[in-house]
Amino acid sequence: MSEDPATAVRLLAPTVRKTTTRLADGRELTYYDDSEPYLSGAATRRLDDPRPLPYRFADVVGDDGVARPVTAPQMRYDVLTGEWIPMATHRMNRTFLPPADANPFAPARPGAAYQDGEIPDTDYDVVVFENRFPSLVAVPGVPDEVASLDGEALWPTRPAAGRTEVICFDPNPTGSLAQVTPRRMRTVIEAWADRTLALSAVPGVEQVFCFENRGKEIGVTLHHPHGQIYAYPYLTPRTTQMLRQAVAHRHRTGGNLLRDVLEAELRSGRRVVAESDHWVAYVPAAARWPVEVHLAPRRDVPDLPALDEAERADLVGIYLRLLRAGDRFFAWPAGSEHEGEPITLPYISAWHQAPVREGREDLRLHLQLFSILRAPGKLKYLAGSESGMGAWVSDTTPERIADRYRQVLPAGVEERS
Amino acid sequence: MSEDPATAVRLLAPTVRKTTTRLADGRELTYYDDSEPYLSGAATRRLDDPRPLPYRFADVVGDDGVARPVTAPQMRYDVLTGEWIPMATHRMNRTFLPPADANPFAPARPGAAYQDGEIPDTDYDVVVFENRFPSLVAVPGVPDEVASLDGEALWPTRPAAGRTEVICFDPNPTGSLAQVTPRRMRTVIEAWADRTLALSAVPGVEQVFCFENRGKEIGVTLHHPHGQIYAYPYLTPRTTQMLRQAVAHRHRTGGNLLRDVLEAELRSGRRVVAESDHWVAYVPAAARWPVEVHLAPRRDVPDLPALDEAERADLVGIYLRLLRAGDRFFAWPAGSEHEGEPITLPYISAWHQAPVREGREDLRLHLQLFSILRAPGKLKYLAGSESGMGAWVSDTTPERIADRYRQVLPAGVEERS
Repeated sequence: MSEDPATAVRLLAPTVRKTTTRLADGRELTYYDDSEPYLSGAATRRLDDPRPLPYRFADVVGDDGVARPVTAPQMRYDVLTGEWIPMATHRMNRTFLPPADANPFAPARPGAAYQDGEIPDTDYDVVVFENRFPSLVAVPGVPDEVASLDGEALWPTRPAAGRTEVICFDPNPTGSLAQVTPRRMRTVIEAWADRTLALSAVPGVEQVFCFENRGKEIGVTLHHPHGQIYAYPYLTPRTTQMLRQAVAHRHRTGGNLLRDVLEAELRSGRRVVAESDHWVAYVPAAARWPVEVHLAPRRDVPDLPALDEAERADLVGIYLRLLRAGDRFFAWPAGSEHEGEPITLPYISAWHQAPVREGREDLRLHLQLFSILRAPGKLKYLAGSESGMGAWVSDTTPERIADRYRQVLPAGVEERS
Repeated sequence: MSEDPATAVRLLAPTVRKTTTRLADGRELTYYDDSEPYLSGAATRRLDDPRPLPYRFADVVGDDGVARPVTAPQMRYDVLTGEWIPMATHRMNRTFLPPADANPFAPARPGAAYQDGEIPDTDYDVVVFENRFPSLVAVPGVPDEVASLDGEALWPTRPAAGRTEVICFDPNPTGSLAQVTPRRMRTVIEAWADRTLALSAVPGVEQVFCFENRGKEIGVTLHHPHGQIYAYPYLTPRTTQMLRQAVAHRHRTGGNLLRDVLEAELRSGRRVVAESDHWVAYVPAAARWPVEVHLAPRRDVPDLPALDEAERADLVGIYLRLLRAGDRFFAWPAGSEHEGEPITLPYISAWHQAPVREGREDLRLHLQLFSILRAPGKLKYLAGSESGMGAWVSDTTPERIADRYRQVLPAGVEERS
C-alpha cells in the first residue's frame, strides 16, 4: 500500500455523521450514520478492512512472473457521434473475488456467514465506496492527456480518469429504497449531495451522476438496495443535448428551458402527478419510456448540493411517494394466474445535475425516474429504431402515465413504514 | 375499401420479378420473385387477400355505436433533447387479430393449418408489406402540419406521417437470413434498394431505414425470418449526429468523414475483418457494443439504390459471411453443461443510408451490425449510464472483437448452403 489510510470524522446535517476511511486496496469508503448511537466509526467499531487485498494500483504480475504497471482505463472518441466511449482496455488487480452467492454489500456482522464483503464495519446506515472494478478511474501518475489511436487524428484517446462509486442505501439486504424510513431517505439525499460536492472538486471531473438501477430486467444481479455515482471526465451525451437545447432556448426566448418547461406543465396541469411545497412531479409532455416521471424543485437549483434545508426535507416525502407508486403502477389482470401478486417495478432513477463547470445557469436539477416495463411481464426492448437510429417510439402517452400515477400515488409517508 | 387495389408487374434486376398488390385493408404488398417459374403474381396464383379486413382508414365504431374518423398517429417534440417521439395516441381498426401461435408471415399454402396470414399467395420468395399496426403512417386527408400541445410553444406536435413495412426474407419459417442462398440474399438487397427508392419518393419522408432485429433477447417474438423498413418523417437522432460530425469534419479538413474513417481503418488494418472487391468490413475504432462490425462500400455511395450491379453482386457474399460469423462468434466453454450447443447471435443489423434530401454528399452508406450478447448467456443491459445519460461503457475492445471475427469468418459461401 502506498496510500495512507485516511480517516476523517465530520458532522453534516443535524442527523448525519460522516466518517471516511479506506479499504485495504486503497479505495475510499465513507459512512453516513443517521442515528445515535452512531453506528460506524466509533472507537469500538472496526474501521479497518482486514481483507488481504493488494493495493489496487500495484504492479500486475503476469503469468511470466514479470511485474508490470497497471494499465489505466482508456476512452476513445467516437468520431461518428462525437461521444467518448470508456473501454475495458485495462487490467486491474483482480486477485480477490467474492463467492458468487455472497452479498458483498452486507455489513461484516459478527457470526455472519460471509465476512469478506466491501464494508468492514459490523453495521452501517448508508455507506459509499469506490467501485472495485471501475470503468472510470484516475490512476496515479498517469497524465490526463489526449493521444491518438494508431496515430490517426480521427481517433483521439484519453485516460478514462473519472470515478465510479457504489452507495448502499440500507444495511437490510432484502429492503428497497422505496421502503426505507423518511429519516434514512434524508441520509441518502445528504450522501448524494456530499458526494456530488466531493467529486465535483476532483480534477478532471466534468459531471456527477447519482442514479439507481433496480431490477433483474435491467441486469441488476446484486439485490442489496444500492445505487451508483459516476463522475465523468466529459459531458455525457444527454447532458450535452439538454445544454444545447437550453442555450438555444435562452437565445430565442431569454428564458431558462427547464424552468419554462416546469411552468408550462404547471399551467397545463394535465400531466402533474404530485406537488409539495418545494417540488413538482410531472410526466413530461414527450415522455419516451412506458413509465416516466420527472421531479423538479420549484426554485432554480443547479444540483443536489445547492438544495437548502427545506428543499431537502421536503424531497424525502415526495420521492418516497413516487418510488412507492412505482410498485403499484402495474397489476396482473383479474383472472390471470398471477392475480394479486405484487409487481416490483424495475426502474432507473437518474438525477440530472448541472455539470461542474459548464451550463450552471442553463441546466437545472431534476430527477428522471423511468422503467422499461410496459405491461405485466412485458418489456419495452430497445431494438433497431432505438438502438440503431436513436429514434424512440412510445407505445403509450404521457397523459395515460400521469393518470395511472395519480391513481396509485400514496397520500403520504409515515416515519416507520 | 376506398382505395383501388393496384397491381403492377415489373422486372427489376436480371433475376428478380416485382409484383405489387394490396391487402384487403388497403395496405400495399410487393412480391420480389427470384426464380422461374416466378412464384407469385402469375395468373393462376392468388393475388387478392380473401380476409374480411375492414379498410384500415375506415371510421372506427365505438362502444356507443357511433362511427368516428381514425385518429392519425402523432409525434411530439421532446424539447429537452430536440428529438421527435412518435406516440401511440391513435386507435386504428384492430378487429382482426391472428391467433397467438399462428405465423402471419407464412404463405397461404393449400392445406396449411393457418390460412389467415398477411401473405395471400400460396408461396413467395421475398415479400414486403406495410405493417398492420404502424407507429408511423400517413392517414389520408390529415395535413402534415405542426400544432402545439396544450397551446404551448414548447411542445410542437405533428402527425407521425411516415411508413413502417415488414420484409419477409424467405418463406421458410424456421430459416434465417444468415442461411438463405446467395441468390435469395441478392433478392433481399434488390427489395431493400427498391423500397428505399419508393419510400424516398413519398411526400414528407426524410429518411429510409432498412434493418433486421433478430433474437428473443431483443424482444423479437415472431421467429419467421424478417426485417423491417421504416420511413421516418424526420431525421433520426443518430443520423443527425453523424451529419453534424460529417459537416464539421468537412469544414475542418475538406474530407468526407465516412470515407476518411474507411481509409484510416484500411491504413491501420488492425480492425479490418474482411475485404472484397467492392466492400470492407471492419470493427470501428470506438465500437460501443459487445459485438459490432461495420460494412462499407469502397466507392462513395449515399444509399442502397445507388449501388451498381457489381457492388450489389459482391455484397451478397460478404454480408452472408458476416452473418454466419455472428452465429459462430460465441461458444460455450469446455466443461459447461451447454458445451457444443450452437449460440444463435441475437443482433440488430442496421443500414445507415444518407437522408432523402439533406447530407447526401456528407453521409455515406454503411451497415452497422451489432449485438447485446457479451458472453454466452450474458447480455449487456442499457442501464443508468446508457439509458439515463446516453453514456456508453464498453466491456471489451474493438481489437478483441475484430480478432474473434477473423477467427470465425467463413472463407466463402456456396450457392446451396
